[in-house]
Amino acid sequence: MGADSLRVAMADHPQGMVNEGDFLVERTPRPAPGPGQALVRVRYLSLDPYMRPMMNPVRSYVEPLKPGQTMPGATVGEVVESNEAALPVGAHVACMLGWQEYGLVTKDSARIVELSAGDISLALHVLGMTGATAHYGLLRLGEPKPGETVVVTAASGAVGSVAGQLAKIKGCRVIGIAGGPEKCRYVTEELGFDACLDHRTDDIERQLAELTPDWVDILFENVGGPTFDAILPRMNDHGRIVLCGNISDYNRDEPYGVKGLSHLLLHRVDVRSFVIADHRDYWPEAIGELAAWVKEGRVRFREDIAKGGLEGAPAAFVNMLTGRNFGKQLIEVAPPSADRPGRS
Amino acid sequence: MGADSLRVAMADHPQGMVNEGDFLVERTPRPAPGPGQALVRVRYLSLDPYMRPMMNPVRSYVEPLKPGQTMPGATVGEVVESNEAALPVGAHVACMLGWQEYGLVTKDSARIVELSAGDISLALHVLGMTGATAHYGLLRLGEPKPGETVVVTAASGAVGSVAGQLAKIKGCRVIGIAGGPEKCRYVTEELGFDACLDHRTDDIERQLAELTPDWVDILFENVGGPTFDAILPRMNDHGRIVLCGNISDYNRDEPYGVKGLSHLLLHRVDVRSFVIADHRDYWPEAIGELAAWVKEGRVRFREDIAKGGLEGAPAAFVNMLTGRNFGKQLIEVAPPSADRPGRS
Repeated sequence: MGADSLRVAMADHPQGMVNEGDFLVERTPRPAPGPGQALVRVRYLSLDPYMRPMMNPVRSYVEPLKPGQTMPGATVGEVVESNEAALPVGAHVACMLGWQEYGLVTKDSARIVELSAGDISLALHVLGMTGATAHYGLLRLGEPKPGETVVVTAASGAVGSVAGQLAKIKGCRVIGIAGGPEKCRYVTEELGFDACLDHRTDDIERQLAELTPDWVDILFENVGGPTFDAILPRMNDHGRIVLCGNISDYNRDEPYGVKGLSHLLLHRVDVRSFVIADHRDYWPEAIGELAAWVKEGRVRFREDIAKGGLEGAPAAFVNMLTGRNFGKQLIEVAPPSADRPGRS
Repeated sequence: MGADSLRVAMADHPQGMVNEGDFLVERTPRPAPGPGQALVRVRYLSLDPYMRPMMNPVRSYVEPLKPGQTMPGATVGEVVESNEAALPVGAHVACMLGWQEYGLVTKDSARIVELSAGDISLALHVLGMTGATAHYGLLRLGEPKPGETVVVTAASGAVGSVAGQLAKIKGCRVIGIAGGPEKCRYVTEELGFDACLDHRTDDIERQLAELTPDWVDILFENVGGPTFDAILPRMNDHGRIVLCGNISDYNRDEPYGVKGLSHLLLHRVDVRSFVIADHRDYWPEAIGELAAWVKEGRVRFREDIAKGGLEGAPAAFVNMLTGRNFGKQLIEVAPPSADRPGRS
């Protein structure tokens, strides 16, 4: 192990569809922990759609990235050096180190990960940000009632898959929308949704009309674009749209123009938007409940882990944004350390 | 007074922009009240934008109109024959008789109008449906706080003018958007908004940026279309959009495609939709409060009354939908009766 650390930065703001040339990979010196700090060796990096709009030079959740900045992102890893008693060497932590092999954390910027519900990687999705996002969005904002009809777009994705399973747990009828027959099969056969439409081949508006005789009470929206417009006419009176993502716009030069807003008005539909980072206090409750359901097998998930280190992150990111991944996209930044417990 | 009654019906579903040829005017027999019924001679008919989407052959708030059906609408008038003790001859009532001179009501389908706050016509706007709409939308759904910035589109219209004045009463900074310099002057000079932009000549996005250094907390939206898209980038974190109307789409063959939905997501903006008819219990509270503010001169209004009877309603309706009216559009269906009290 040398005293350096690989990182991936944004080379420049992408124009339209992001590609591997928009990133640069370089070695930097590995930092040394100061007082109250710990050095973390990253094991997994999470790739998420929200990273794409951050690469645009416009106001977003946070300041836009500048060329040369390390790509941000959620990570899990192991403490390898420490000047902080709350973060002992060997501890597994979740933190936001971004696309790099090593980074510094404090007790306020890292949370200890319990391995009781499975592998450390779960803290990057079903027992982490995407799980908390699905939980808050579907249960708090969607307010599902037994017997209601729920539609989830990007149904096989990290957020959508959990949102739909939570809706099933709450007694709803759940229709997924996903890209391709393999994902649709997974959504119905593995995740237990009542049906799944393939936005690549199905006539969403017509088939959804057949599948939702009682209209749609909750739309958990991750995608936007023409599919969103095809669902809007099916919204029930007093329906709720949980606006969680707009991934179909992230690589368009010009955003898609949504035509169906009149349906909101005609049917008194609310649109509820949120960013899970605003609700940190909610995470422990959500993750605790999700961990129990994961153990019981009531919430299932799928990981798509790119091996081979950080160099593969740009290609995996491009793949994810075009829907070519299948399951939560992770990068294995480093192999397990010798003393790491195996998968439970 | 003959024993007939003029009515205006929809001739056929309009294609795109509505025109006078889409209506037919005919004489029908005047109905006789049965047990529990009263015959009302209509004095004023209210013309409202919501009537336009009802003329399309699609699911709306209610069943779409069929060719030959009388146009719907809110009316005020006087009881001229009665078999119902609660509705004595001579009483002034607000009811939904639509575009006709005479009609039957029961005590459940008519409310007695008190003339204490002004003329009977006020029951068709500031002390009726549009007032209740502005009150519920701005105060209940908008949740204005002192010092917040509010934008109101169609600011000189029946709903927008009241919504903006309520926002001023609540201590907000209020920017109107209206069509033409005369309406803009009215909005600032008569209604007391802090500023008003002319969507026909102003660069809304740029000028709004100058006028809203602290962003926009509440958008009270009556219009939709390109102006809506120009406002979305100015929404503040946790802003609220009260979706009250989408008048710019009502005469388009193809709805406008709204491009700015990503701003909702980025800034955790909620969109809240409603139809005031769902909230009948709320009307007395709203109208009581508005009547007090009208008397105190804190809520002002303007009427645009087309004289000359129902025959002029189609032309006035077309005018209103293209923004050529100025003030609440009313049709004087019949002159005052001899014993009618004058304007207070």
